[in-house]
Amino acid sequence: MSDFPTFVEFHEEGPREGFQLETVLHPIESRIRFIDALSRTGLRQIQVGSLVNPKKVPTMADTPELFARIEKVASVKYTLLWLNKQGFLKALDVPDVTLEGWLYFYASDALARANNDRSAEQMRQEQLDFVKLYEHHQVPVTTASIMCAFGCNLEGEVSTQRVTDLLSWIREITVGRGHSLPTLMLADTMGWASPERLKQLIGAIRDIEPDIRIGTHIHDTRGLGLANVYAALQMGVDLFDSSVAGLGGCPFASHKAKNTAGNICTEDAVFLCEELGIETGIDLDALIEAAKIVEEILGEQRPGKIMHSGSLSRFRSKK
Amino acid sequence: MSDFPTFVEFHEEGPREGFQLETVLHPIESRIRFIDALSRTGLRQIQVGSLVNPKKVPTMADTPELFARIEKVASVKYTLLWLNKQGFLKALDVPDVTLEGWLYFYASDALARANNDRSAEQMRQEQLDFVKLYEHHQVPVTTASIMCAFGCNLEGEVSTQRVTDLLSWIREITVGRGHSLPTLMLADTMGWASPERLKQLIGAIRDIEPDIRIGTHIHDTRGLGLANVYAALQMGVDLFDSSVAGLGGCPFASHKAKNTAGNICTEDAVFLCEELGIETGIDLDALIEAAKIVEEILGEQRPGKIMHSGSLSRFRSKK
Repeated sequence: MSDFPTFVEFHEEGPREGFQLETVLHPIESRIRFIDALSRTGLRQIQVGSLVNPKKVPTMADTPELFARIEKVASVKYTLLWLNKQGFLKALDVPDVTLEGWLYFYASDALARANNDRSAEQMRQEQLDFVKLYEHHQVPVTTASIMCAFGCNLEGEVSTQRVTDLLSWIREITVGRGHSLPTLMLADTMGWASPERLKQLIGAIRDIEPDIRIGTHIHDTRGLGLANVYAALQMGVDLFDSSVAGLGGCPFASHKAKNTAGNICTEDAVFLCEELGIETGIDLDALIEAAKIVEEILGEQRPGKIMHSGSLSRFRSKK
Repeated sequence: MSDFPTFVEFHEEGPREGFQLETVLHPIESRIRFIDALSRTGLRQIQVGSLVNPKKVPTMADTPELFARIEKVASVKYTLLWLNKQGFLKALDVPDVTLEGWLYFYASDALARANNDRSAEQMRQEQLDFVKLYEHHQVPVTTASIMCAFGCNLEGEVSTQRVTDLLSWIREITVGRGHSLPTLMLADTMGWASPERLKQLIGAIRDIEPDIRIGTHIHDTRGLGLANVYAALQMGVDLFDSSVAGLGGCPFASHKAKNTAGNICTEDAVFLCEELGIETGIDLDALIEAAKIVEEILGEQRPGKIMHSGSLSRFRSKK
């Protein structure tokens, strides 16, 4: 008996998470072409860029222009990332953006400090300010992410207790204030997750919050990306962050080197779902074409697999 | 409840399957250094090269010299590949080689013709000649491989019936002649396997032969390599062919292109086993060092993941 979901949703992070890691600013026309190709694949959500300090992340500096110039498809939610109040206020002014309230928690104090110059505890407290900010602007609080939920290169193992403690706090600052419990995204920022650990953690979370929607943001740092996706599917997980062509990753987990693994590769994960009989609403061949645009733009071979070997549809028709 | 095996054996195929695909003959000293590094990892079996027509496969021409010059470790079986009687007779003369009788079957007629210029049916019949040859030379018949057991780019889907028909014939020419039933290696030559299909096929085989030992030879062509390994482990499979640094692959499945996926990557698969609490007898960090030698020799980045991100042991000690 399988607990597979019947439909799985992919949130495409490549345009933001991938291009943020780049050391050069690629021509905006190329990036528009890439995102426009993604819009025609059946994806339901695409993160276009982030509203962060342009001096700190120059490759995201033209995000508002990029966002304005992409061709919006009605069935797609186009999102932006912000990490502080300033970024959120900028997002409010972006036409056609889907605004959802995200909260970010850190299971690793060391990563919280490296990423944000603040402790995990400070970050935890500040998320209440974000809830209040979202309330003030009538933006629904939809999602809470836990970074390094499985372990951290900078800090080591992460205990289940650490994650479930954050979960209690998440309930307190959302449900406790009259919101629904947000979707919980377990982020394997440093590539520590393994299939059984993932199942165990999801089981522990459901023991406390049986009805919570759980998604994952898995990095393929140590090669277990799709094995972890398969394990998550076996647990009924129906939401995955991913990046076309395997873009993205965490700069603190050797993801900046050329060609190394980043986020799980959207088209490979979609292929996995298809082969398991799980619907995604995505046209795999169109997605492969979008992945090839990434290689054109970056001028390098990406770690995605099926983009180089081809889907099975054309081979299946042979017999 | 898990059916995980407690110990998993990896048969390293990189030196043969990987270097066979190369278009240049890399210096023999480098390849000796690579194999000697593999010998010190705890691997139990290493396929050193193949005894095939040196005109057809010039990169395997110096296999006898290579075999003679590597430093043999007593706990390691060093094997050679042969595809015809001539090759086998050559192997008989190689000192210190582990001689085991292998049989090769094709679930795809098109691949049988492409690889061997003969039909799958001819190949099937000829395996009886191999059994007789092995009997004559008192070499035990240990393993039967089914190529393209899951599907074939050249031919399309492969039915379960096709595999179980071959299994009946394997029983007839082995058990029917007083041998034990050989280990069955399911080869996903073209990267068609998916986790549930793999489980289904293994289940169908065990319905007929409950006690057969099943191993897999999985190519990571479409990115599902380690998800398939995880599925196989869930079915209790305890034997995997694999290649350090993800070397190898099938020339008919776009594996000759630089940096594309080949065989499942030994060190990534060993890491998966470790994280699942399954023993392999292999020193993961030593294996990563051997993988790095491959990149030095080939002068290219390989698709292996953990060779670039590092094992977790040094990070775990942080807390």
